[in-house]
Amino acid sequence: MAVYTDVTDEALERFLAPYDLGAVLAFKGIAEGVSNTNYFLQTARDRFILTLYEARAPREDLPFFLGLMEHLARAGVTCPQPVRARDGQALGEIAGRPAALVTFLEGISIRRPTASHCAAAGESLASLHEAGRDFPGRRANPFSVGGWRPLFEAAAGRADAVAPGLSARTEAAIRALEREWPLGLPEGTIHADLFPDNVLFVQKRLSGLIDFYFACTDGLAFDLAVCLNAWCFEPDGAFNVTKGRALIEGYQRIRPLAPEEVEALPILCRGAALRFMLTRIVDWLDVPPGALVKPHDPLEYDRKLAFHAGVPHAASYGLAR
Amino acid sequence: MAVYTDVTDEALERFLAPYDLGAVLAFKGIAEGVSNTNYFLQTARDRFILTLYEARAPREDLPFFLGLMEHLARAGVTCPQPVRARDGQALGEIAGRPAALVTFLEGISIRRPTASHCAAAGESLASLHEAGRDFPGRRANPFSVGGWRPLFEAAAGRADAVAPGLSARTEAAIRALEREWPLGLPEGTIHADLFPDNVLFVQKRLSGLIDFYFACTDGLAFDLAVCLNAWCFEPDGAFNVTKGRALIEGYQRIRPLAPEEVEALPILCRGAALRFMLTRIVDWLDVPPGALVKPHDPLEYDRKLAFHAGVPHAASYGLAR
Repeated sequence: MAVYTDVTDEALERFLAPYDLGAVLAFKGIAEGVSNTNYFLQTARDRFILTLYEARAPREDLPFFLGLMEHLARAGVTCPQPVRARDGQALGEIAGRPAALVTFLEGISIRRPTASHCAAAGESLASLHEAGRDFPGRRANPFSVGGWRPLFEAAAGRADAVAPGLSARTEAAIRALEREWPLGLPEGTIHADLFPDNVLFVQKRLSGLIDFYFACTDGLAFDLAVCLNAWCFEPDGAFNVTKGRALIEGYQRIRPLAPEEVEALPILCRGAALRFMLTRIVDWLDVPPGALVKPHDPLEYDRKLAFHAGVPHAASYGLAR
Repeated sequence: MAVYTDVTDEALERFLAPYDLGAVLAFKGIAEGVSNTNYFLQTARDRFILTLYEARAPREDLPFFLGLMEHLARAGVTCPQPVRARDGQALGEIAGRPAALVTFLEGISIRRPTASHCAAAGESLASLHEAGRDFPGRRANPFSVGGWRPLFEAAAGRADAVAPGLSARTEAAIRALEREWPLGLPEGTIHADLFPDNVLFVQKRLSGLIDFYFACTDGLAFDLAVCLNAWCFEPDGAFNVTKGRALIEGYQRIRPLAPEEVEALPILCRGAALRFMLTRIVDWLDVPPGALVKPHDPLEYDRKLAFHAGVPHAASYGLAR
């Protein structure tokens, strides 16, 4: 939630020279995304987002992300579309960082989604999965089962500083999931971070999906599990099965789940909860004192993990048996 | 340079209910201003800035600032114009803070102004002074000569932590200015903070003035002195007399300076330099370690103060004798 890199009018002018976008009418640093710097740019031609990829962004993967957004936009998914310069390049450099211009999407994100928002999100997620089927790019998910232990080890000694007992609990969850993690589920390109912040609405209509910088190749149902975690819990920690049903039904209207995906859903939900708990623990421990960025609470996902551990069947998430 | 207060879609909806602005199409926290929270808002009707006044903003003065912007906009100064709700109110509340919507101005600020930018700024400053003549509101300048000693005392013991000797140097400058400060100069409504960040340009055309939250009633030429400090020094600390001349000539095209203002210009420039040095010292010492906001360097104004101390006559700033 902060602009990390300052861009002067002169740097912007140099960056825009190889594009045909007309006069700059507005340029404002915006509080969007957590690891990249984003600017809202309005020119005589259109509105754009300029993203500067900061140190945390894996540079070798930028062509994958940009290529994916182009592919999805062509297939009808409303997502930001990279803007190419006259020489065909979508990736440039500004203020010493790799940078790209993408089209601006209207809409605002919803803090407390209703079942109807969940249905729209589910439908949109499935459309993304369908549209991504013939995307040729591949990128392993660094935050799937193989990445959890290294992530945990980076923070292990200090996890108990977040909450007593968290370290042992997390260790046990990783060990169990490493043993039980389902293999061979239908794979494809997933968003991997489709939280309500990344879904825009204009009034009740879903107007676009944003922030594809965790996108990767992984089990499609894992993406649905991420959404069940992100969209269907109430602030008091209760799982709202009406929202879960709406999300899953929305998804299945576009892409019905295979029986093995239905069966795996509870464990995929545990894995998704663990994945966000782990990065939140690391971020929590890494924040300098006094920083303006307030990290997300890792314990929210500790509680969600405990909920999923008690789920015997996908029916508990609202899936019709 | 940070969004301080988070505004949810629900809070925004409640805030906008008494306005007639149409559907919300975009709402982004922007990195603008240093002490208030600002959002870019686009609705079906127009683009706006939503400002939440944080603790540092003097609440009793908000009607002065909003009234001034309305007055100036009516008089043809391109500045943000407060938007009134159906009941006529321009000041509302959101997320527990006083808040106001103003119209959005196109343009970007120029990091390294040329003489032509300086001329436009000078002209615009004088137009503001002319337009403000019949503004009935009054607000004492908390950062004029009477405010410097209390400000310094708040930081006095620690000024040497910024640079050795700074404390004694500042003390001496305050004492001299308290003795020599000119009284009885033409007064009116001044912007008091017209730095390049607060002046927008679309290509070479000045498109608007923003951030009126230091505006007050004070000597008009003091405002020009603030601009000479803010617009006419080079990054290496040298005063650029070509830019100074452009700024002063631009100003005088609209409002010629009185002889006593010309005479007072060097001491007004010292006062303006001291004023920004003092608030920068306080901000410098107040920043929590690790904060993302990088405070402005107080020593930049220590050096400017030293320059002005050696100026015998306004001719050194480029004023034609």
